[in-house]
Amino acid sequence: MYWQIEQLSDAEDKSMEDKHMLMIPGPTPVPEKVLLAMAKHTIGHRSPEFSQIMEEVTENLKWLHQTNNDVLIVTASGTGAMEAGIINFLSPGDRVLVGSNGKFGDRWAKISKAYGLEVDTIAAEWGQPLDTEEFRTKLEADTEKQIKAVIVTHSETSTGVLNDLETINRHVKEHGECLIIVDAVTSLGAVNVPIDEWGLDVVASGSQKGYMIPPGLGFVSVSPKAWAAYENCTMPRFYFDLGQYRKSAQKNTTPFTPPVNLIFALQVALQMMKEEGLENIFARHSRLTKATRDAIKALGLPLLAPDECASTAVTAVAPTNVEAEQIRKVMKKHFDIALAGGQDHLKGKIFRIGHLGFVSDRDILTTISSLEITLQQLGYQNPAPKKVVKAASKPLILT
Amino acid sequence: MYWQIEQLSDAEDKSMEDKHMLMIPGPTPVPEKVLLAMAKHTIGHRSPEFSQIMEEVTENLKWLHQTNNDVLIVTASGTGAMEAGIINFLSPGDRVLVGSNGKFGDRWAKISKAYGLEVDTIAAEWGQPLDTEEFRTKLEADTEKQIKAVIVTHSETSTGVLNDLETINRHVKEHGECLIIVDAVTSLGAVNVPIDEWGLDVVASGSQKGYMIPPGLGFVSVSPKAWAAYENCTMPRFYFDLGQYRKSAQKNTTPFTPPVNLIFALQVALQMMKEEGLENIFARHSRLTKATRDAIKALGLPLLAPDECASTAVTAVAPTNVEAEQIRKVMKKHFDIALAGGQDHLKGKIFRIGHLGFVSDRDILTTISSLEITLQQLGYQNPAPKKVVKAASKPLILT
Repeated sequence: MYWQIEQLSDAEDKSMEDKHMLMIPGPTPVPEKVLLAMAKHTIGHRSPEFSQIMEEVTENLKWLHQTNNDVLIVTASGTGAMEAGIINFLSPGDRVLVGSNGKFGDRWAKISKAYGLEVDTIAAEWGQPLDTEEFRTKLEADTEKQIKAVIVTHSETSTGVLNDLETINRHVKEHGECLIIVDAVTSLGAVNVPIDEWGLDVVASGSQKGYMIPPGLGFVSVSPKAWAAYENCTMPRFYFDLGQYRKSAQKNTTPFTPPVNLIFALQVALQMMKEEGLENIFARHSRLTKATRDAIKALGLPLLAPDECASTAVTAVAPTNVEAEQIRKVMKKHFDIALAGGQDHLKGKIFRIGHLGFVSDRDILTTISSLEITLQQLGYQNPAPKKVVKAASKPLILT
Repeated sequence: MYWQIEQLSDAEDKSMEDKHMLMIPGPTPVPEKVLLAMAKHTIGHRSPEFSQIMEEVTENLKWLHQTNNDVLIVTASGTGAMEAGIINFLSPGDRVLVGSNGKFGDRWAKISKAYGLEVDTIAAEWGQPLDTEEFRTKLEADTEKQIKAVIVTHSETSTGVLNDLETINRHVKEHGECLIIVDAVTSLGAVNVPIDEWGLDVVASGSQKGYMIPPGLGFVSVSPKAWAAYENCTMPRFYFDLGQYRKSAQKNTTPFTPPVNLIFALQVALQMMKEEGLENIFARHSRLTKATRDAIKALGLPLLAPDECASTAVTAVAPTNVEAEQIRKVMKKHFDIALAGGQDHLKGKIFRIGHLGFVSDRDILTTISSLEITLQQLGYQNPAPKKVVKAASKPLILT
């Protein structure tokens, strides 16, 4: 007998609301220590005490970004950080190559157009990675060095695809002149992004992802080459003028009032990340991804992104013979587990499991076992039934 | 015998750090209920639960703004909100009148210039109010209606001056065509800003002031007349494109990930404000201002702004025969009370007492009595000694 969705306990029932479990690709679960840091009394942002915190978080951000470049903090969502990453280093009419294989690649093309850039889009189907050869061809053909920047999304949150940033960046370096501007919103802190080793010029990210803190902070790392471009940039800007942030950061402060309590949260989260260590963080994300994908395969459900380009932040599933939105509804109503839906034309066609940030092995087993029961109750027939929880647990136990 | 500052207990002593008292004009003290709301687990920003909160806070923001206009929430500081208020309704080359009698008026002139507006500044000395007659003269002379907007700071945080917005706005209305764009960052929630009654087109504010919540949220109220101007506005923008926020707000959501935990804080703070009631809130701020100013007068210290234009958010004091920075240092070191210093050319010349947001009668008496002792210990001689605490208490007791 299947459950009637209507009869399931309602998530709006306030008595159990703290049992809510976030398995979406942002906002991600926030550790208790970080939540409690946010509940501390606000202090003045021009005080020596706050400057001391700014100094610590800036140093730790550089550690996390694996860079000696400036890493600047803006009060904004990830989109604001990306906009800052674009409007400080380019001028109207500049030609840019934008990789687009999902909602966020599309967004950078939109921002670029809104600011009068000449946008040449390299597209791929949603769920497929960008073709690095297309970048090579266009960059090699640009003998007159008209292309000023390549703008690319590393982990495409809307599809769970990890683009091959390393190879694209190599072609950029062979071009020699253009900048590489990277959306690392869901990759930073979930997968290796060695900024200095690769020579990434501008890398933008947001707090509600691998950082394990609530939304509200954006981060932008800026290379010396990008700062040189900044000097000639003619785009209008004020709030997002990164030159002002750099000047203030040198004095451990900010040009405009920062969200003090979110900075408290950042301080604690970065301390936790340092304690875990970069290698362990990346290994954990890989392990959770493998476990999730193996379980989805054992369930007989199609994965949207191929294994070779699987993001370690989020896994998108394109179920057949069962409605994605029904799955999300039951997961939410009965188990109080939030999964993300599809965006734009993938709405209703996929669901997405976030496994980045403060997510443990146990969270994956919980999600997978709840998903298995949900599918059963929705009448889903697995074409080749396998032991699902066991499949999920293998990558977790072996490492 | 005077204290040696060096011998005073150090505020960096962690054991007493929770005793810190914020008496600066932002960030302001945050109520316990609001702090605890921020420590709640983050939820998905696309969930029905979050939309319900957005619906409630939007309705309550309209109540606080005394308007039926859209009131939009941006993830940004007050400066970001002001920038949004400028770049959505004007086009490069447009002529604007900017009132400037302090750091923030100056800032709006800078933003306007950064975006290519033709800026005509109406200035007054820092500490003096803007001359409303100058607005009248320039607006009356503009028979060809070239002036597209008047941009004015209501409460100038850097000096404690409340500009006569009502009169300036009346001249704007007589002009008939131009918009009025208001920085109400430290006036909203501290003094009456009846948006609909006066017909204010764009009003920007920030969370860390009268709202009693930490920094990180900006608010912009937009009139139908401003929306009409939006349609013809050619300034480039994306993150701060208020049209996107309006579209999303109609569905109780946001175009980009909002700072969920700060929205939790906003929800609770607005509930508290509704409970207190607008009239009581404004009366409390007036009372605290009167008490502060009367006490400063009894101390024989010069007030920067005249009584007639005193902001109910912040009081600036320009001490003679005693160093402003010494006062701040002792207040901080010995009593752990944070006062603000002067900005730009007033640095070292004034100190500022913030009395907006979650500030009570007791807080004023605490600050004033600590200030009296501080001055004594710094060797300050009051030219005509009066009973200072009694002076402060009179406005508090009589109301």
